[in-house]
Amino acid sequence: MGTLVNMNLEEFLAELASESPAPGGGSVAALAGALGAALSSMVCHLTIGKEAYQDVQTDIKATLKESEQLRRQLTDLIDKDTEAFNEVMAAVKLPKETDAQKDQRRQALQQAYKNATCVPLQTAGFCEKVLDIALRVAQKGNKHSITDAAAAALLTQAGVDTALLNVRINLGALKDTAFVQKTTLEVEALSQKTKEKTATVLRLVEASL
Amino acid sequence: MGTLVNMNLEEFLAELASESPAPGGGSVAALAGALGAALSSMVCHLTIGKEAYQDVQTDIKATLKESEQLRRQLTDLIDKDTEAFNEVMAAVKLPKETDAQKDQRRQALQQAYKNATCVPLQTAGFCEKVLDIALRVAQKGNKHSITDAAAAALLTQAGVDTALLNVRINLGALKDTAFVQKTTLEVEALSQKTKEKTATVLRLVEASL
Repeated sequence: MGTLVNMNLEEFLAELASESPAPGGGSVAALAGALGAALSSMVCHLTIGKEAYQDVQTDIKATLKESEQLRRQLTDLIDKDTEAFNEVMAAVKLPKETDAQKDQRRQALQQAYKNATCVPLQTAGFCEKVLDIALRVAQKGNKHSITDAAAAALLTQAGVDTALLNVRINLGALKDTAFVQKTTLEVEALSQKTKEKTATVLRLVEASL
Repeated sequence: MGTLVNMNLEEFLAELASESPAPGGGSVAALAGALGAALSSMVCHLTIGKEAYQDVQTDIKATLKESEQLRRQLTDLIDKDTEAFNEVMAAVKLPKETDAQKDQRRQALQQAYKNATCVPLQTAGFCEKVLDIALRVAQKGNKHSITDAAAAALLTQAGVDTALLNVRINLGALKDTAFVQKTTLEVEALSQKTKEKTATVLRLVEASL
C-alpha cells in the first residue's frame, strides 16, 4: 500500500497543506474519483437484498463489482500521481553542466513529464467510468440514497476536471508533438463526455427530490 | 479527534463504500471542502518567502491563517455530519406504541433532522469562504501552482453542491415552515454565489494556462 493512502485523513490534509508541492491536485483528483466510487458502492450495498429492488439485483451486483474495482484503481493513483510528480522534480535537479548532462536531463525530463501526463489522464479515464456507475446507481439504486449518487457524480466530476487540468499543464512541457496532439484530443473528449454524464445524473436526482 | 478523521484513506474509503449509510455524502462534502482549504494553504506556503511575490507576503500570510482555520473547521464537520445522521437513525428507532411515545419520537426526529440540516449548511458556508481564499490564491499566489488553486475551487464546489443537496433532502422532513423557508433561501443564495466564485477562479486559471 502506498505512503499517502496509509495516512489518516487528518495527516493527509496536513501533508497536502504543507509547503511540499506534492501531493497536489493530481493526487486529490484520484482521491475525489475514489470517493465517488465508494459512494456508488455504498448505494449498491443499500440496494442489494432489498425486496423493493428485486428486479435490479443482478445488475446492481455487477455494478458493485465494477465500482469496487474502480475504487481500488483510483486509490492506487493517489500515490502514483505524487510519485510521477516527484520524478519530475528529481529530473529537474539533475546536473546540467556538460552537454552530455544537459542531454540526459532533457531526456529524463521529457520522460518524467510524459508519465506525469499519463497518470492524471488515467485518473480522468477511470473517473469517466465511475460516472457511468453513478448514473446506473441513480437510475436503479435505492431511492433513499439517491443524493449519494449525486454526491458520487459531483466528487468524480471535480476529480476529472482537476486531473485534466494537470494533464494540460504537463503537456505544455512536452516536445513530442504527436503525443501532445493526440492527448489534447483525449482531454477535450473526456471533458465533454463527463460533463454530459454528470449533468444527466444531476437532472435525474433533481427530478426525484 | 473524531473517529472518521483518524481512519487512513484506505479505511475511510472502505467504510464509505460499506453497507452502513453513514458516512455518506455529508461527510464527503466536508472532506471535499477541507481538501480545497488544504490545497489553498499549500499554494500560500509555496508563495511565502519567494522574492517574486514580495508585494503580497502580508496578504498571503493572512490568507494562509484563514485557510488553515477553515481546514480545521471543515475537518471537524467530517465527523459531525455522520454524528448528525446517526442521531436521525437513532430517533427513527425510538418506540412508537403509545401516543406519548409517538409524540416523543416525532419531537426527537424533528430535532435530529434540524441538526442534520444545520451541519451540511455550515459545511456549505465554510466552503463559500474557502472559495474566497482560492480566488485570492489564484490572483496573488505562486503562478507555478495555479492549477492547485483551480483544484481547490473544483473540490470545494463539489463540497458545496453535495452539502446543499443534503440540506434540501433533510429539509423535506421538517415541519417548522419558517425554518424551512429561511433555510431554502440560504441554500439558493449559497448555490448561486459559490457557482459565480468558482467560475471566476476557473476563468483566471484558464487565462493563465
